[in-house]
Amino acid sequence: MTAAPFENLPARVPAPDTDVSFEERGLANRNSGLPLELLRHDITPAGAHYLLTHFDMPHLPGDSFRLRIGGAVRTPLDLSLADLLERPQVDMPVTLECAGNGRAGHDPRHRSMPWLYEAVGTALWTGTPLAPLLAEAGAAADVQDWAFFGADEGFDDGVRHFFGRSLTPAEVAAAQPLLVTGMNGAPLLPQHGAPLRLIVPGWYGMASVKWLNRIEALTERFDGFQQVHTYRYRQDRESAGTPVTTLRVKSLMVPPGLPDWYSRRRWLEAGPVTVEGRAWTGPGRRITGVRLTDGSTSIEADLSAPVGSHAWLHWRAVWDARPGRYQLRCIARDDSGAEQPLTPPADVAGFGNNAAQSVDVQVAPHEV
Amino acid sequence: MTAAPFENLPARVPAPDTDVSFEERGLANRNSGLPLELLRHDITPAGAHYLLTHFDMPHLPGDSFRLRIGGAVRTPLDLSLADLLERPQVDMPVTLECAGNGRAGHDPRHRSMPWLYEAVGTALWTGTPLAPLLAEAGAAADVQDWAFFGADEGFDDGVRHFFGRSLTPAEVAAAQPLLVTGMNGAPLLPQHGAPLRLIVPGWYGMASVKWLNRIEALTERFDGFQQVHTYRYRQDRESAGTPVTTLRVKSLMVPPGLPDWYSRRRWLEAGPVTVEGRAWTGPGRRITGVRLTDGSTSIEADLSAPVGSHAWLHWRAVWDARPGRYQLRCIARDDSGAEQPLTPPADVAGFGNNAAQSVDVQVAPHEV
Repeated sequence: MTAAPFENLPARVPAPDTDVSFEERGLANRNSGLPLELLRHDITPAGAHYLLTHFDMPHLPGDSFRLRIGGAVRTPLDLSLADLLERPQVDMPVTLECAGNGRAGHDPRHRSMPWLYEAVGTALWTGTPLAPLLAEAGAAADVQDWAFFGADEGFDDGVRHFFGRSLTPAEVAAAQPLLVTGMNGAPLLPQHGAPLRLIVPGWYGMASVKWLNRIEALTERFDGFQQVHTYRYRQDRESAGTPVTTLRVKSLMVPPGLPDWYSRRRWLEAGPVTVEGRAWTGPGRRITGVRLTDGSTSIEADLSAPVGSHAWLHWRAVWDARPGRYQLRCIARDDSGAEQPLTPPADVAGFGNNAAQSVDVQVAPHEV
Repeated sequence: MTAAPFENLPARVPAPDTDVSFEERGLANRNSGLPLELLRHDITPAGAHYLLTHFDMPHLPGDSFRLRIGGAVRTPLDLSLADLLERPQVDMPVTLECAGNGRAGHDPRHRSMPWLYEAVGTALWTGTPLAPLLAEAGAAADVQDWAFFGADEGFDDGVRHFFGRSLTPAEVAAAQPLLVTGMNGAPLLPQHGAPLRLIVPGWYGMASVKWLNRIEALTERFDGFQQVHTYRYRQDRESAGTPVTTLRVKSLMVPPGLPDWYSRRRWLEAGPVTVEGRAWTGPGRRITGVRLTDGSTSIEADLSAPVGSHAWLHWRAVWDARPGRYQLRCIARDDSGAEQPLTPPADVAGFGNNAAQSVDVQVAPHEV
């Protein structure tokens, strides 16, 4: 055990604080994020990808599973898992992020899953393209929306429903979703939607319906709870808001140095420190730069090629750490001109918070 | 969407409450528990097993990995992963539970990872027995303890250390630990200690050191932070306490009915309801019964055979649900005469809380 020159170490019992409800604590226990040091992996290891589950994870044995495609279609389809596996298969790395990621950074904060930064992950998804299957069913001329339902059912705000989301025919054409049965080269895990889920590349995670067992063609817009009551950007609680759709530009770093167990604050010794992380943005755009700043100096990071056209890239910067305490931040920008803000974009429910990550780092003098 | 006869549904914004710190919220986001509905699986799916990580998960590429066994031994060993894989391999289902599981049920509550019930899991571990390897190294006659160190380093209460735990020679002989490289038929995942971890069957999880790369034979008792400062049962903060060791008798149920997203309260319709769950106890003991109670009636559950000699068993009971609100509880007992208490056993740091789970269930009249 080295006697290190670190100072200001927190004691186990911190000052009391407030404002995290028991329900939020329960949600934080139940839902799980990506431990940020695992950002080092191009493809997030099984079990480390973030998970947000609205209700309970249903149990759907593969051998009795059916996917039903109905509503305003010419040919309703009723498909087994084997039927789906016989169709053309695609492997695609996709970065998914929860629309509520960063919610805990808002003040005042909406009471829901209190994510800090960790609701993200990149898996290699295996599945069959959705569009040809919908074409086979054949939408009626006046179809306005495709609704996708999971087998997971429960209540939210007093409303009982199966988790359901929709995409317009134009959104399906643009996003090229997959009907996914595999993840990281293995069968889809129960908690990630086995045996079948939707993956909508480039969209926030709520669009990628898990435990998918029903698709309906609708001649009006879908009005399900998860489409119209939540996953909306709102400036005040009363407004209808605008739908949450594709990913905003964002980056994260692996927090450098050694952590304190309880506070997660970081300590390291002075000298050059390689800081690395990931950056991603919405569909059809690309990351053009990531800047690492300690408050007084900024460094442009080296960027690697993206892991896929809908997946994050790796970045790396060498920071000359001098003794002191810093809020290290990484700020990504993309070719649309968008750049991460320093403070959370205003939103009543805390959606789409792409404010730059802040890591509390204490640098001790280098021991000679 | 059915118009169901459910009442007393919580609104999204509950009464304000207090006493969960931001640090605890951060820990709850970072560490992850078993979603209780996955108790249905004999072997917990990859990624759903609980994870408690004190510091950062280190990155240890398998091809350069070494396990060093030294200290007071005749023959220090320096082993590659290939060396370990050439040794006899054993597959063993083991139920692991975090010693801090249930901490959030204590009042007053120690500030640390605020587990409710979910810090548990059963994996099929593959590895080589530890004891023959230690015999090969050959402990000196006066060895009192074997210390096991992970590659994960950080601070706790201001003390810098690698995570380390110890077992006496007698404890090694009794527990028959494994040096594990595989989990559920696949290579060990990074977050579960890849490429090598210890599994100590029958003990709380802290003994099963992850990212294990060093074993030391000591001629006195190990005094590392994780052995003497924490993982002790204490009635007051000043006492030395007694070490946390093997599992206490415990059971959990899959919460029945439909959940509310935010509160996790449950709703179901009146009628017979099959309630199922798991029960386990410490080494050398066996579960003799599980009782399900709604506060006025009790039902003895049917028990299946344990999944392994160090793994949980499955239980099932049919509850006649009548309209009303209940705290459903399951209470296991074992052949030592131990039974789960209804309130948490007193402990300053919230260790070893095996109080019976309580699930808040509202039963609505059956819809005709």
